Amino acid sequence: MGIHDLPRNESGIATALDVLRQRFGARLETGQALRAQHGHTTTWLATQAPDAVICPQSTEEVQEIVRICAAHRAPVIPFGTGTSLEGHVNAPAGGISLDFKEMNAILAVHPEDMDAVIQPGVTRKALNTHLRDTGLFFPVDPGADASLGGMAATSASGTNAVRYGTMKDNVLALKAVLPSGELVQTASRARKTSAGYDLTRLMVGSEGTLGIITELTLRLQGIPEAISAATCSFPSVEAACNAVILTIQYGLPVARIELLDALQVRAVNTYSKLDLPETPLLLLEFHGTEAAVTEQADVFGGIAAEMGGSGFTFTTREEDRTKLWQARHDAYWAALTLRPGAKGISTDVCVPVSRLAECVSAAQARLAADGFIAPIVGHVGDGNFHSLLLIDMENPAEIARAEEFIGWLNDLAISMGGTCTGEHGIGQGKAKYLERELGPGAMEMMRAIKRAVDPLNILNPGKMGLG
Amino acid sequence: MGIHDLPRNESGIATALDVLRQRFGARLETGQALRAQHGHTTTWLATQAPDAVICPQSTEEVQEIVRICAAHRAPVIPFGTGTSLEGHVNAPAGGISLDFKEMNAILAVHPEDMDAVIQPGVTRKALNTHLRDTGLFFPVDPGADASLGGMAATSASGTNAVRYGTMKDNVLALKAVLPSGELVQTASRARKTSAGYDLTRLMVGSEGTLGIITELTLRLQGIPEAISAATCSFPSVEAACNAVILTIQYGLPVARIELLDALQVRAVNTYSKLDLPETPLLLLEFHGTEAAVTEQADVFGGIAAEMGGSGFTFTTREEDRTKLWQARHDAYWAALTLRPGAKGISTDVCVPVSRLAECVSAAQARLAADGFIAPIVGHVGDGNFHSLLLIDMENPAEIARAEEFIGWLNDLAISMGGTCTGEHGIGQGKAKYLERELGPGAMEMMRAIKRAVDPLNILNPGKMGLG
Repeated sequence: MGIHDLPRNESGIATALDVLRQRFGARLETGQALRAQHGHTTTWLATQAPDAVICPQSTEEVQEIVRICAAHRAPVIPFGTGTSLEGHVNAPAGGISLDFKEMNAILAVHPEDMDAVIQPGVTRKALNTHLRDTGLFFPVDPGADASLGGMAATSASGTNAVRYGTMKDNVLALKAVLPSGELVQTASRARKTSAGYDLTRLMVGSEGTLGIITELTLRLQGIPEAISAATCSFPSVEAACNAVILTIQYGLPVARIELLDALQVRAVNTYSKLDLPETPLLLLEFHGTEAAVTEQADVFGGIAAEMGGSGFTFTTREEDRTKLWQARHDAYWAALTLRPGAKGISTDVCVPVSRLAECVSAAQARLAADGFIAPIVGHVGDGNFHSLLLIDMENPAEIARAEEFIGWLNDLAISMGGTCTGEHGIGQGKAKYLERELGPGAMEMMRAIKRAVDPLNILNPGKMGLG
Repeated sequence: MGIHDLPRNESGIATALDVLRQRFGARLETGQALRAQHGHTTTWLATQAPDAVICPQSTEEVQEIVRICAAHRAPVIPFGTGTSLEGHVNAPAGGISLDFKEMNAILAVHPEDMDAVIQPGVTRKALNTHLRDTGLFFPVDPGADASLGGMAATSASGTNAVRYGTMKDNVLALKAVLPSGELVQTASRARKTSAGYDLTRLMVGSEGTLGIITELTLRLQGIPEAISAATCSFPSVEAACNAVILTIQYGLPVARIELLDALQVRAVNTYSKLDLPETPLLLLEFHGTEAAVTEQADVFGGIAAEMGGSGFTFTTREEDRTKLWQARHDAYWAALTLRPGAKGISTDVCVPVSRLAECVSAAQARLAADGFIAPIVGHVGDGNFHSLLLIDMENPAEIARAEEFIGWLNDLAISMGGTCTGEHGIGQGKAKYLERELGPGAMEMMRAIKRAVDPLNILNPGKMGLG
């Protein structure tokens, strides 16, 4: 997997632990189970536990901890909910895990400006629960109820990025502690700015390697007056993808447009007792006024028919929408039942939409040839899809074959003008693909920035191939 | 003004000119008029001419020129159409101006992916003319027909950023030459990515201080099936701003929402022979299906009435739309007639929308108290507005008072959680406000990045306060 332990600065880490223990007492936790849980990843990557875990309660405490760690060259690894998929929270060189669960305050909501200022430990669902009565919501929705700090660090997105964008588009500003202990405010609360380098977007997706995020200002959206949902089956992945392309070219402001492949539909039919045709399925959602969302679903129906779609159904009633989208909501759990006992390992390529059908079809063909059970779900409006490889984690040979497949698919996506990661990030496993994707110039620039901002390489070392 | 000549590396520049002349012959131009034009700014900043101008014809030539200049520590200043407002193309330490007018090829248009790959010298109007038959357009529309490379470098936007975003949102990827001569490809053509640091957005808005942009991949939008335009007069700036806030909170997907203040309306009435009430005016545009844009304009009419608006008018017919928006289209030229012979100097603050009415009103009050003639136009959906101070450029005392006003307004916007620049950039004049706005941490980080990427400080030195 290309994940290795890195050289440990034993004496520096030991001294940092001593100093931190003097300062924070029992709040510096070193129990084995807790440490292992903080170096735990939700993919096949092995756990690499930090030496200690601490839950900072304020930005000032983060500054203090970082200064102590920097003085003794001990690594610092920020931790949200631990739901990242690419080993982002692993501690290959040891060090201190900063768990943000106690920095979970919603500091301000500005309904007129449609923004909120929060601490990084707030989860997306907690924020949306808090916002319920304001008529506003935060749209970015990865599968897990992740912390918003972690979502910013990995540049997460989800099913409605096609309408509302990713974390890159929805973080207005943030505060982060640099390795020097200095606090950076990246931007003002204005909705647009040309003031200096875009440090906000440099930090978003930097996976904890440039600074420790301690505050986020997020854009909010108005809860739409009406929502319509639509589903339609297609004879082939190509037909479904062509419907996606036409829908977006037509300018339909689709809020969600998701693809399930035939295998995934079969899994859901069994799991959720549905009787959908076992062919590729598109699920859509439109947000707007009552009249607009009805019209939009209707226009999509016409496009779908033109592309050979069948079984087009749409509704604006909430309970019917839930039923219509059940196949998508149950997709992950349904997929796992295809091979009981197996663990799902997800790919994350994203290609130009014109190449999506070709990429998905090629992936399906090779998955079948290699004998994998691996249903596919796609955020197809963005050209992003996940094949969930169901793997027996006790079988090293099978894991190696999965790894080979993933490498092949990443290279295929890159050759199509795409990326190895649409929303999961680089972390530990994908560093080599990053270099293939962007080439030596970009790596040189990223490494120069990393060295300039974190010359001691104490911030989340061993990630993104940056040191 | 805070604009100064910087120390010149005379011998290095002389050697670089010699080497470049040997290589490029008469293509290295040193005529005084041409040089002055390339250090010319469209604001009050004094011209600081480069030592020579060259028009590169390929990325390889840019690499070659940058390598020669780096070897002899001669500054390199990229030049698009010279329409930036903050001295971005000035050469305070001398050096070579790279004029991109000959790198103006549209390299590829991918209609299915809704993107285009272009050279930086293509102007926004040239791109949209080229796209005319594809049903697609590029939405970012600053006042000038600027080059897209320059628009990316300054993070430009315009009237429809509220719907389509700014350059930050519409550059998918770019290529840039680093001071080392190395070429960086910042991202793939995928519509979303979590692959590494967001070098695309770091470059956008970096004002030529980190790399020389030689290629851009731009997101395109579908030309809407229908457009509706609406205008409405309001008794006060506050009433107009409250209508803006409600419109956006309601989730109306407004494509444009512009404010003219009473003085600007008076100017347009005279200039364009209109008879609008001389009170604040909002102009809106909606993009979508025929039914949607009619409904949206209608919903806005209701909001406007609730906020005390009067004279609400809307239309979807193209010739009527043009007439309805005439007040906005003619705003700049109409403003200039308020004081014949004067030159317009534009402010560019952007504040959270909740503070917009207060900020505009305070600006109006002080402009009146100071005796300035300065109509206001605002991209109010974003909280961004420009007061155009009409100044006698032969009167140094008046210029000094204008400078004082601008500083006061920048500080006011910053104190309201806003920025000194929504879309014009920092350039030479605003470096001190950048520091006040973001504080020492952000400046430290920006300077560290600048030093790491451009250790010799040869890329557009003297801009953004970064060296």
